[in-house]
Amino acid sequence: MTTTKTRELTALARQLRVDSVRAAAAAGSGHPTSSMSAADLMAVLLARHLQYDFERPEHPGNDRFILSKGHASPLLYAAYKAAGAINETELLTFRRQGSRLEGHPTPQRLPWVEVATGSLGQGLPVGVGMALSGKRLERIGYRVWVLCGDSELAEGSIWEAAEHAGHEHLDNLTAIVDVNRLGQRGPTRHQWDLDAYARRFQAFGWHTIKADGHDVDDIDRAYAEARSTLGQPTVVLARTVKGKGVESVQNREGLHGKPLPDADEAIEELGGVHDVRVDVQPPPPARMLHPVRSGHLELPRYEIGDGENAVAPRDAYGQALAALGTARGDVVALDGEVSDSTRSELFAKEHPERFFECYIAEQQMVAAAVGLAARGWVPYASTFAAFFTRAYDFIRMASIGGADINLAGSHPGVAIGADGPSQMGLEDLAMFRAVHGSTVLYPCDANQTAHLVAAMAEQRGVTYLRTGRGALPVIYGPGEEFPVGGSKVLRMSDADRLTVVAAGVTVHEALAAARLLADEGIQVRVIDLYSVKPVDRQTLRAAAERTGCLLTVEDHRQEGGLGDAVMDAFVDGGPVPRVVRLAVRTMPGSAAPQEQLHAAGIDAQSIAAAVQLLVEQAVVK
Amino acid sequence: MTTTKTRELTALARQLRVDSVRAAAAAGSGHPTSSMSAADLMAVLLARHLQYDFERPEHPGNDRFILSKGHASPLLYAAYKAAGAINETELLTFRRQGSRLEGHPTPQRLPWVEVATGSLGQGLPVGVGMALSGKRLERIGYRVWVLCGDSELAEGSIWEAAEHAGHEHLDNLTAIVDVNRLGQRGPTRHQWDLDAYARRFQAFGWHTIKADGHDVDDIDRAYAEARSTLGQPTVVLARTVKGKGVESVQNREGLHGKPLPDADEAIEELGGVHDVRVDVQPPPPARMLHPVRSGHLELPRYEIGDGENAVAPRDAYGQALAALGTARGDVVALDGEVSDSTRSELFAKEHPERFFECYIAEQQMVAAAVGLAARGWVPYASTFAAFFTRAYDFIRMASIGGADINLAGSHPGVAIGADGPSQMGLEDLAMFRAVHGSTVLYPCDANQTAHLVAAMAEQRGVTYLRTGRGALPVIYGPGEEFPVGGSKVLRMSDADRLTVVAAGVTVHEALAAARLLADEGIQVRVIDLYSVKPVDRQTLRAAAERTGCLLTVEDHRQEGGLGDAVMDAFVDGGPVPRVVRLAVRTMPGSAAPQEQLHAAGIDAQSIAAAVQLLVEQAVVK
Repeated sequence: MTTTKTRELTALARQLRVDSVRAAAAAGSGHPTSSMSAADLMAVLLARHLQYDFERPEHPGNDRFILSKGHASPLLYAAYKAAGAINETELLTFRRQGSRLEGHPTPQRLPWVEVATGSLGQGLPVGVGMALSGKRLERIGYRVWVLCGDSELAEGSIWEAAEHAGHEHLDNLTAIVDVNRLGQRGPTRHQWDLDAYARRFQAFGWHTIKADGHDVDDIDRAYAEARSTLGQPTVVLARTVKGKGVESVQNREGLHGKPLPDADEAIEELGGVHDVRVDVQPPPPARMLHPVRSGHLELPRYEIGDGENAVAPRDAYGQALAALGTARGDVVALDGEVSDSTRSELFAKEHPERFFECYIAEQQMVAAAVGLAARGWVPYASTFAAFFTRAYDFIRMASIGGADINLAGSHPGVAIGADGPSQMGLEDLAMFRAVHGSTVLYPCDANQTAHLVAAMAEQRGVTYLRTGRGALPVIYGPGEEFPVGGSKVLRMSDADRLTVVAAGVTVHEALAAARLLADEGIQVRVIDLYSVKPVDRQTLRAAAERTGCLLTVEDHRQEGGLGDAVMDAFVDGGPVPRVVRLAVRTMPGSAAPQEQLHAAGIDAQSIAAAVQLLVEQAVVK
Repeated sequence: MTTTKTRELTALARQLRVDSVRAAAAAGSGHPTSSMSAADLMAVLLARHLQYDFERPEHPGNDRFILSKGHASPLLYAAYKAAGAINETELLTFRRQGSRLEGHPTPQRLPWVEVATGSLGQGLPVGVGMALSGKRLERIGYRVWVLCGDSELAEGSIWEAAEHAGHEHLDNLTAIVDVNRLGQRGPTRHQWDLDAYARRFQAFGWHTIKADGHDVDDIDRAYAEARSTLGQPTVVLARTVKGKGVESVQNREGLHGKPLPDADEAIEELGGVHDVRVDVQPPPPARMLHPVRSGHLELPRYEIGDGENAVAPRDAYGQALAALGTARGDVVALDGEVSDSTRSELFAKEHPERFFECYIAEQQMVAAAVGLAARGWVPYASTFAAFFTRAYDFIRMASIGGADINLAGSHPGVAIGADGPSQMGLEDLAMFRAVHGSTVLYPCDANQTAHLVAAMAEQRGVTYLRTGRGALPVIYGPGEEFPVGGSKVLRMSDADRLTVVAAGVTVHEALAAARLLADEGIQVRVIDLYSVKPVDRQTLRAAAERTGCLLTVEDHRQEGGLGDAVMDAFVDGGPVPRVVRLAVRTMPGSAAPQEQLHAAGIDAQSIAAAVQLLVEQAVVK
């Protein structure tokens, strides 16, 4: 016999289906069938388990809900409507220009969305980051609920997340998998074999619960069990039917991402339009964590000099980050099992409670940073510059979601030496420059590095710092300022015949080249373009006007890096200077750092030779 | 009682350790301790199980060996020496400039290396690609052996590979995991808990064998069991000691990636320098597969026109790929569970035996393409342009290994419409341009697409094709040629006041803008820059000379894409034209395709307005 509770939940689920169908019909696109499979899962969560105050999305005690299968956005918006957060009229603006209800949800537009989804396999890893915050930092009892699709379990990032959550015993995390058997193109690998998924999650240390995803009582039982499970994260594996409730579409291939063929008929079959409202249970009172800020940042100070005074930018990174962590209790650090190389170990030693070892799982590391940022922390995640390529999709999605994250890539370029190309970041500047709203910084000296590490904490969006491996001369005093978007003119005279634009290791090569050239009677200007994005238009334009020609020198591929960044100063239709570009154009092998710079044609000797050639060719004045 | 066999294997292993220590000592860098842990595993493989003809690395019957833990290269080179493939003198050139023996092995330099490794978690996924070739295409009985580190099992890509291999029952694949407990920074998550790893691999359908990684007989037994296991891939989980054999370093933290403190003492402790040679068993005779080539390629032909004649580039991609597959038996296709969107399903329908469904696992998809390319196939792998960001590290490593792979990204840019930014490829041109030796193509019409699909088969390195989602007018006849590195001047006159450079969808916007402007008496040149890399210097320079100003228009971020590519024509110190850049500078939401182009400021109206402004400002003549 059906209880009142069961009837109410079923009615709510039916309405979520109807509203999903209506939203997609109004839009003429979207994913109603992927929403219909998960409608019962969502109804029971909303009415019986989620603790959330829709009027106070910033409430520290709120549970967190992440729609990892972001394409099921009609279901999410239907749930918002049922909860009274949006109205009928807004629901039907789905996917229209200017609507908050995008094809895939983003926190940029909707206050109840925790993170941008739509690239599959990302919601769970980000949820791990939030659960880590709840458990290790905020120590608030909120639960993180992540609704996943079955298709996305093929993504390796899901298993990075499973490993991390299992190992950290994140019992405040529940994954709900909508096993509807059908992906976009056709059946998934395991179809309705819930045991196949259960074996995998169990192996990674999770508690697993199988459920009938269309039996609201069974779902209720599963969620209750998840909430009462201690010491392990839980996954609810729910057998569902894609397009459930409408005979003409349910469990049929070829209907992914399409509105229902006959929406009116489908709505009738589903019981018609209703306006059921659900009272979502508010969270218990919780204390917002206000991390301590000493307000006084004592950055490391380095003496100007070479030789014994030379310092690797990565060393300055670690030291500055540790100091920043002392001054600000909201700064956290993450690393991909290379903290002895990136030097984030210096932070880990001083602030172990705010350091997250992510092992060699760069996707999970960036995702955890996004999750921590969503909870108000200021994350710095570090690995080799080269290995951020592993997480590019996560970085891209972080920017879509407006996450404020700081990433530090050590071991850039051929200057790392003998390890060879697999360990050299040679595409990182291109990759990060192309990210919307990003900031890209590339220091050449320890004091500069330290100041930029501090400045990153105030930046919005994705901020990247490229920290060199080898020791470099300290050329700036500890009191020098390095505003983001600025640059430093290190050498100039009225007789300058050309401007060399460099950053990081090539700044020192450029300075050495300038000295060699001065001996030959050729004066050149040298600019340290430590802020690769945004770029210092004014200084570059002034140099171009005065010297006519710019020679860019970078320890990076010739595409998308410093050379291209310089052009950002000249794309408004004004006069453009002559440009010559030195960059890494061949595939390096193993060799000593200085040999590498020479072989790539970006050392002092190569720079001087290029300038001399330009003088001979009368390209420069 | 120790048998002769055991003694010989032990002696060989001891020599591999000694030679690893010597190579790193000579180099002054490298990873001897990571080599020493796996020396017994390597010795037994080399002497008793690997079937390989070092004089004929191209032998089709050869087993394939992949060092997934690429930093243990001293062990690999020590093995090559024991097998007589390299000599003592060469061994000691390790990591020197010009040596074939790089810090991490690459097939570009050594004929016995199957794939470049050094970025962890990639060897096994590539091995899956080779095993797929052996089992499904070549039907030769070779075995693929992959030596993994324990640290790299944290990478999600390992589990994408485990899933793929388990599901495909790749019993010709053996993973050997050197469980030495220590990563770079310190202990791994599971240390010596072999069962933790066993549970995970078993859950993914693998046969698992635990072994004492320093007991040559136990290892021998494990390999024999792996070779005789049918219907499942096998993983040998070997408990080992990092730095095994040298008391002062073994099982100690802080020694990763460093030569031994006292190499001479270590060599003595290990039994001194010897010159044991091992006779590696040759493979049985095998027939090299010569895929059928009809030699006659019948590309699809599209009629010029708009409206009913309009064709989406992705449709032309699928149709051309299917045709290419008919003409060439060596063409294979892979897709990330979106073949109905990318249209690679057209290939799958016609050539199911050469189609590989990789589900939503883009890293594994690109890795499989690399593995298939290593076996001589010509792979085309497709997914949404946006989702290749997931595999950027694999693409980067493919280029380091010199793999010839073709990648096709559909759904680029804001032009996809209502799905929103998570599905829009907006960084793909930047990402692919920065890859060394890459080719980047971006067609605007169906005939152009078809010709470029065919041309890709002849390209070396990483070749990327950006295939638009929506139908576009056909503007070229089917007989037109589109050489890589070329461009098309679509509109020109002596009165041109500016040149609009476009590609893909913006070509049509540029043409429409040119017509609007012509009505106002303003003539502009229009260039279709379908070859983004390499770029057509000559045509761009001629246009710059004649029209003075270039306006680039792209459905991509302003960094690293078409606008930056155009600059490649002007970085040799010659005169640079004035440049104005239209690109996607905001974060799009959901909207119809034409609304998106307008909102991004890259539609015909925006282009025309920009030109008019430049005319008013007298920037153009």
